[in-house]
Amino acid sequence: MDFKTRTHTCKDLREEQIGETVILNGWVDNRRDLGGVIFIDLRDRYGITQIVFEPTYNKEAHELGKSLRSEFVISIEGKVRKRPEGTENSQLETGQVDVMVDKLTILNEAETTPFQIKDDIDVSEELRLKYRYLDLRRSRMQKNMILRHKFYQVVRNYFDSQNFLEIETPILMKSTPEGARYFLVPSRLHKGSFYALPQSPQTYKQLLMVAGYDKYFQITKCFRDEDLRADRQPKFTQIDVEMSFPNEETIFTLVEGLMQQLFKELKGIEFSAPIPRLTYDEALERYGSDKPDLRFGLEMVTLNDALSNSEFRVFKDTIDNGGIITSLLANGCGNYTRNQLDVLTEFAKKQGAGGLIWMRVKEDGLEAPIAKFLSDDEKQSIINKMNAKVGDLVLIVSGPKQKTLNIMGNLRLEMARRLELLKDTIEDKLVWITHFPLLEWDDETQRYYAMHHPFTSPLTEDIKYLENEPSKVRARAYDLVMNGNEIAGGSMRIFNSDLQSKMFSVLGISKEEANEKFGFLMNAFKYGAPPHGGIAFGLDRMIMLFAGENSIRDIMAFPKTTSGLSLMDESPSKVADEQLRELHIKLRK
Amino acid sequence: MDFKTRTHTCKDLREEQIGETVILNGWVDNRRDLGGVIFIDLRDRYGITQIVFEPTYNKEAHELGKSLRSEFVISIEGKVRKRPEGTENSQLETGQVDVMVDKLTILNEAETTPFQIKDDIDVSEELRLKYRYLDLRRSRMQKNMILRHKFYQVVRNYFDSQNFLEIETPILMKSTPEGARYFLVPSRLHKGSFYALPQSPQTYKQLLMVAGYDKYFQITKCFRDEDLRADRQPKFTQIDVEMSFPNEETIFTLVEGLMQQLFKELKGIEFSAPIPRLTYDEALERYGSDKPDLRFGLEMVTLNDALSNSEFRVFKDTIDNGGIITSLLANGCGNYTRNQLDVLTEFAKKQGAGGLIWMRVKEDGLEAPIAKFLSDDEKQSIINKMNAKVGDLVLIVSGPKQKTLNIMGNLRLEMARRLELLKDTIEDKLVWITHFPLLEWDDETQRYYAMHHPFTSPLTEDIKYLENEPSKVRARAYDLVMNGNEIAGGSMRIFNSDLQSKMFSVLGISKEEANEKFGFLMNAFKYGAPPHGGIAFGLDRMIMLFAGENSIRDIMAFPKTTSGLSLMDESPSKVADEQLRELHIKLRK
Repeated sequence: MDFKTRTHTCKDLREEQIGETVILNGWVDNRRDLGGVIFIDLRDRYGITQIVFEPTYNKEAHELGKSLRSEFVISIEGKVRKRPEGTENSQLETGQVDVMVDKLTILNEAETTPFQIKDDIDVSEELRLKYRYLDLRRSRMQKNMILRHKFYQVVRNYFDSQNFLEIETPILMKSTPEGARYFLVPSRLHKGSFYALPQSPQTYKQLLMVAGYDKYFQITKCFRDEDLRADRQPKFTQIDVEMSFPNEETIFTLVEGLMQQLFKELKGIEFSAPIPRLTYDEALERYGSDKPDLRFGLEMVTLNDALSNSEFRVFKDTIDNGGIITSLLANGCGNYTRNQLDVLTEFAKKQGAGGLIWMRVKEDGLEAPIAKFLSDDEKQSIINKMNAKVGDLVLIVSGPKQKTLNIMGNLRLEMARRLELLKDTIEDKLVWITHFPLLEWDDETQRYYAMHHPFTSPLTEDIKYLENEPSKVRARAYDLVMNGNEIAGGSMRIFNSDLQSKMFSVLGISKEEANEKFGFLMNAFKYGAPPHGGIAFGLDRMIMLFAGENSIRDIMAFPKTTSGLSLMDESPSKVADEQLRELHIKLRK
Repeated sequence: MDFKTRTHTCKDLREEQIGETVILNGWVDNRRDLGGVIFIDLRDRYGITQIVFEPTYNKEAHELGKSLRSEFVISIEGKVRKRPEGTENSQLETGQVDVMVDKLTILNEAETTPFQIKDDIDVSEELRLKYRYLDLRRSRMQKNMILRHKFYQVVRNYFDSQNFLEIETPILMKSTPEGARYFLVPSRLHKGSFYALPQSPQTYKQLLMVAGYDKYFQITKCFRDEDLRADRQPKFTQIDVEMSFPNEETIFTLVEGLMQQLFKELKGIEFSAPIPRLTYDEALERYGSDKPDLRFGLEMVTLNDALSNSEFRVFKDTIDNGGIITSLLANGCGNYTRNQLDVLTEFAKKQGAGGLIWMRVKEDGLEAPIAKFLSDDEKQSIINKMNAKVGDLVLIVSGPKQKTLNIMGNLRLEMARRLELLKDTIEDKLVWITHFPLLEWDDETQRYYAMHHPFTSPLTEDIKYLENEPSKVRARAYDLVMNGNEIAGGSMRIFNSDLQSKMFSVLGISKEEANEKFGFLMNAFKYGAPPHGGIAFGLDRMIMLFAGENSIRDIMAFPKTTSGLSLMDESPSKVADEQLRELHIKLRK
């Protein structure tokens, strides 16, 4: 198919080009027949230009133009003219001109698409994913892909400017057992052996520090074979960063520079560092979450002090058992009906609360079913502590600390939705969460798990608790949270093989297992490992937040469904038995 | 382990800092005890600084300094001083100064490394790969990694500047059958189904063109489960490029701009476009290869015309059978001994030649065993055609065209080595090879294979031969060759589903199979596919050539052996039967 190379894209033409002969290539976006004259919006990635087929101007082109339909791919040659007065389109960059067509070449025809190529379509996500190449033509998806492209460039240029080296780590690596499941790749050349796809380049980036590379980064693909939740993908993309001889401040400063750059270049927003910090304990107590959304207030208030001598059984039991009484002030919600309050109570119970205590703030004090169990002092103390005003609503949950704070954290988010605190125009909020616990106890398996991963360094002053009171040990770990989403997590790493061994032992990983799985890393630590630390960003989620989308599938070109299917190419799929034979495996019945 | 953050790296200090108190972190590269004073070369990624422990300056630091050994990781605080006269080191950037140590913190000790950390080591590659984190400390490897980092940045910045969008394509994709073997990934969530790791993002980048993205690039990882040859890796890295509405010239100009940028920024060399071009046929006839090394002359000369009426049986048979008589002039090699000529003959025979004809150019004409079978005219004609001078050597091979040209091509490379034409200082040479055959006939399987891949467009004027004389069809394909290595290959693609179907049929792929494997691409072509084309670069090989290395393993941080083993982490490895059970597979006995 011969055609001429375009002289301009579909967003280039202006009044300066009037009278010029131009060549455009693109898609038929829209076609109108007006009194024998055919107007076509010609579309490419860059924009739209109106082209005109007029029988009196060029009969042959007009004749052929009649056959054009939506999404045909064409090449035209024609003359730029000023649009007749009154027909200019100020919405379009090219809206002052159009092109009178002298020659039309139809490069490809198009069947009727299963859905229209426009932003406000009402079709199932299944259909969009099956015809992803059409879905991606919509300007909203295009905007997202262009944002993603820019994101990459800003990130890499930033780390390059900071003297970080981009180094590729293996995709076919060793299977190691911590955490989520690995995708495995059977080896043909080594019978009965398997590679694993990386869940993260963690061990390799640590080895690069041992190798003296000092500052490493990479935008890399990671894989987790999880039972997929709503917004997970089997493959995700990570900005991976590691450096030698850092401390927490080095990493914070580095990352704050990156965030400033991203906000500036992608949103046109300048903000000044440092980003606020909360310890894990503070975040939990004030927001009920280790990824608090700070775009609105609604801070939780602990009432243990105010109610330390309460005779009310629920509070008394909680305090005696070392639990927490946490409260939330809903401004102006004192007029909530009984029915509304029942819905909130139901919400709290669904989260696992024993119940939800509510109190209306009235002129004459607190009105509540449990009011009679509280002394006047206690009621006044609650009002003071919460800074409650007449017309407000007080919500209280009590019980075991962690669980209760999480319940109230979720209630806080629910109230924010009900109070419509999350307007589109709301300012983005970043916060560092620090001082995470090193370990989490799991009741089911009766063992500790690493809260971040087993290479995370304990706080120096807490190492002494590692063997006998492991739950007291805090980690040199930190997360960066944006608008209630964890967008990055990192830590100072263990760089001493003895401490690493001790950590494995606390995690119930035997010496043999540790040696088999991580022996090469522990071995490397014997030849001069520097102190090192880093961070990894969930790139997909970050881009989603920057794009203002609600699904990471909308910022990926070819995502999978939540069960890991590609609806477009129908993978995964069956393979020939011969292929499995070569790989020395067979299917189980 | 508490230590102070460095104030400088090990390459920063100059005379301006004399008298300042500084903190350095790094590795003990080298240690000398001179009359009670300890000199240490402290090393980091950036450079080396000499630090000094003197008992009269600081007794405590000196005492601790005695325990330092090679590759210990330390942090020191000390005062910069001018080195005593006569002890300056002009080899080092920091060689005018050293640092008198006030305080030493040993951050990590190091056992004796299995090999020394220096460039000229004589150890097996196995040992280097097992201790890759130590091998990577050597400055040669570091130089290569830094080059690789820069390579990435130059490439991406170039394509970004040319309005290309970086878009990620899937790693877990559909298994399709053409060409080399896929690595497969069993699906846990979909019993009996498998993903494949991509051999290239070919179909996805074509879909992005259908989606209207116009210009796409990506530096991406590709996977081929081949029986690995000496310099292959199961994973390789590709610069992948595709654009809509191009022709060959568009791609050539784009790529030439990239190559200019790479040569300028990485080698400090400016060259002017265009890069020379040879058709596949020319390249084969003149250099015996479709990836000719143009850094030296030694052009082959076809003698069919000169010997068209030869009575010599070997030549006569060749010409009668449509074969070729090709020759090479080795300047000044007329004095080669019989023994040397036997070695060359042996070389040619090993390549598959029936024999090698040689002729010495003497004052009185050609001296050769076969001289008596040639007429005086023929001998003179050979001399003229080859521009042979007294003292030169003429080498001739004859037989079936393709095979004979390849043999002579290899002999050409062998002669270049013998004549030492490939000096280190030799200028790099790039060349485009164009007009490849679309298909290759395979005698063993009795079918045609796509020489590039089945999506390559035939030349418009050759489409008519596709059904009945497929071997006559030339492709709109091109390779970029650097110093005898193919560094990139691409083509204009088929963008019409009928032509694509025809192509599959010529390749013996049934309609059902084509539909099952590539149905989504052929389907996409029905909804307005633009003309498109692109190219893909073998990034590893390119970097190897730029680095002047002979093995791609030397420009990868964590390469595998030729049989796909990682000697450092011992992957691939056995996995628990439980893992296989979850994946619905088991090992074959």
